[in-house]
Amino acid sequence: MENTKNNATKLSELGEFGLIDYLTKNIKLRHKQTIKGVGDDAAILKFGTKNIVVTTDLLTEGVHFDLIYFPLKHLGYKAVVVNLSDIYAMNASPKQITVSIAISSKFSLEAVDQLYQGIYLACEKYNIDLIGGDTTSSLTGLTISITAIGEIEKEKITYRNGAKENNVICVSGDLGSAYLGLQLLEREKMVFKTNPNAKPKFDGYDYILERQLKPEARKDIIEFLAINHIVPTAMIDVSDGLSSELLHICKQSDVGCKIFEDKIPFSPIAKDMAAELNIDPTVCALNGGEDYELLFTISLDDYNKIKNDPNITPIGHITEKSLGLNLIARDGTEVPLKAQGWNSFNNEK
Amino acid sequence: MENTKNNATKLSELGEFGLIDYLTKNIKLRHKQTIKGVGDDAAILKFGTKNIVVTTDLLTEGVHFDLIYFPLKHLGYKAVVVNLSDIYAMNASPKQITVSIAISSKFSLEAVDQLYQGIYLACEKYNIDLIGGDTTSSLTGLTISITAIGEIEKEKITYRNGAKENNVICVSGDLGSAYLGLQLLEREKMVFKTNPNAKPKFDGYDYILERQLKPEARKDIIEFLAINHIVPTAMIDVSDGLSSELLHICKQSDVGCKIFEDKIPFSPIAKDMAAELNIDPTVCALNGGEDYELLFTISLDDYNKIKNDPNITPIGHITEKSLGLNLIARDGTEVPLKAQGWNSFNNEK
Repeated sequence: MENTKNNATKLSELGEFGLIDYLTKNIKLRHKQTIKGVGDDAAILKFGTKNIVVTTDLLTEGVHFDLIYFPLKHLGYKAVVVNLSDIYAMNASPKQITVSIAISSKFSLEAVDQLYQGIYLACEKYNIDLIGGDTTSSLTGLTISITAIGEIEKEKITYRNGAKENNVICVSGDLGSAYLGLQLLEREKMVFKTNPNAKPKFDGYDYILERQLKPEARKDIIEFLAINHIVPTAMIDVSDGLSSELLHICKQSDVGCKIFEDKIPFSPIAKDMAAELNIDPTVCALNGGEDYELLFTISLDDYNKIKNDPNITPIGHITEKSLGLNLIARDGTEVPLKAQGWNSFNNEK
Repeated sequence: MENTKNNATKLSELGEFGLIDYLTKNIKLRHKQTIKGVGDDAAILKFGTKNIVVTTDLLTEGVHFDLIYFPLKHLGYKAVVVNLSDIYAMNASPKQITVSIAISSKFSLEAVDQLYQGIYLACEKYNIDLIGGDTTSSLTGLTISITAIGEIEKEKITYRNGAKENNVICVSGDLGSAYLGLQLLEREKMVFKTNPNAKPKFDGYDYILERQLKPEARKDIIEFLAINHIVPTAMIDVSDGLSSELLHICKQSDVGCKIFEDKIPFSPIAKDMAAELNIDPTVCALNGGEDYELLFTISLDDYNKIKNDPNITPIGHITEKSLGLNLIARDGTEVPLKAQGWNSFNNEK
């Protein structure tokens, strides 16, 4: 009756991307409506004349969030936002979500209510309909699974695979803040464990805490691109860190890239926190993740349209594939970029 | 930093349906494309001229399945099927699914592979495209979240709310088998716990085991209805038990119903098992759940079209609301139907 446990290969040997590759390598698509399946921020389906965008994310307690410092209302908000971010990363407009939760009976109705207040707040802010879901119990912690559905005109669809040589690589907002916010929360959690009477030291760090606990999806950037008639050649949202996202774009577009360390946008507060924690902020941007900014490539013709926008920073350009993926450090040295993105199978506490 | 735990109301006080009602009572729908949100087997969205059907289910280890006796391949298959069943219950055709899993590192790659073999087998059998998902770790057991997307012509959409007085109540296949299969598995698990050398006694019970471990969704019934130009006035799939599903249809249609105990379809093997376990098979049908049959109501005009089909059984009729919901027992007594459907918040082991 038991499941075979022989010849066991550990999941941590593959990592998340390896596992996804393994599980999806033989996928057969049967319907002509399925325009794009696995392999981008979201899937694209064509129903009649409309293109539908679908994405889904699963968040589990202890892996994606720690309820010791994550207020449930914020968690509900963030769970929606991370899905909307994937829809925006296709250059699409999210319209609907389904929300499924599994909760242990240790949660009260009031706690679940808080979670949903955050979910509804995100729906209000981003103009989203909550259309369904599932609510069940779990033997242990909280799991949240959200699927988001959006709409897009065919000619605006932006995959990861269209980046071309000499395209300008742009990123919205700033990077590394969400990771530094998490480090601060983890530090204060440790302090609290040792001394429960100690007051957490959060003064002046609201910005990076908010980037971790209540991130926003870049709806404004998608609107800016539309108004300025820019269709990026490739786009992805920064959920796993700049390195990992650049690797996705370059691998799928069959190109290389060169980015400049001194162009990577940081908030002053993130820099302060990095200094205080003695971490290199560039490492936070490259490998931190959870910034939910948009990373995209545009043709040189479009460069003039974005160059004065304070929310968009050009950080480098696409090169031919043989040149590889490189970061030009502040001292001029060239450092190859590696995916040190998040392997949740190695991060179990 | 901690979440407020005051004025705590236990989730078990509300149950699953109470919690869903509470969480969704103030939902605002913002988009004209959202034709039907929460409250049926699936949501209906209108994109252009096409109607899209969306449903989602979350299965958690220890609550929805026990890996001691649930082979992972079967589990993957079932996880897909239960979602397709919801799409069929709208009278629609499923086309795509997304699959998200959270797994603890105790699972090997080979185990995850088995799970996906079942998922892909269901995709093949039901002609479904797997279009996306999320793969992450969990600190504890296995969680599977699937969203299914289907398509339907407007005039064929079948909600729960259209049942009319004198409509015939029909059910596909037979009922109670999945629950009895579960009872058998639980019995043998207990035997195994006491005596690990004992051989499980499953001989002759393949049918009810398969109904629990590898259920099918009633695609054939939807095809039969289409060929015979029958659009049910209301439809729901039997996931929580006949009582609970009849309550949903009658509440949403604002009607009553009368069903006859001697008309409820059982398999001979289910009857044998019920006798062996000393359980009333009618109770298994009413409150057992997981049969994934279709329960639907049709006008008297359509009755002749179904009456000779061996896969569809008329079990009663819709009455006016004031008469309530009643089962006419074999001895002629009238028994009011109650929702004793599954409250997962009370079922924690």
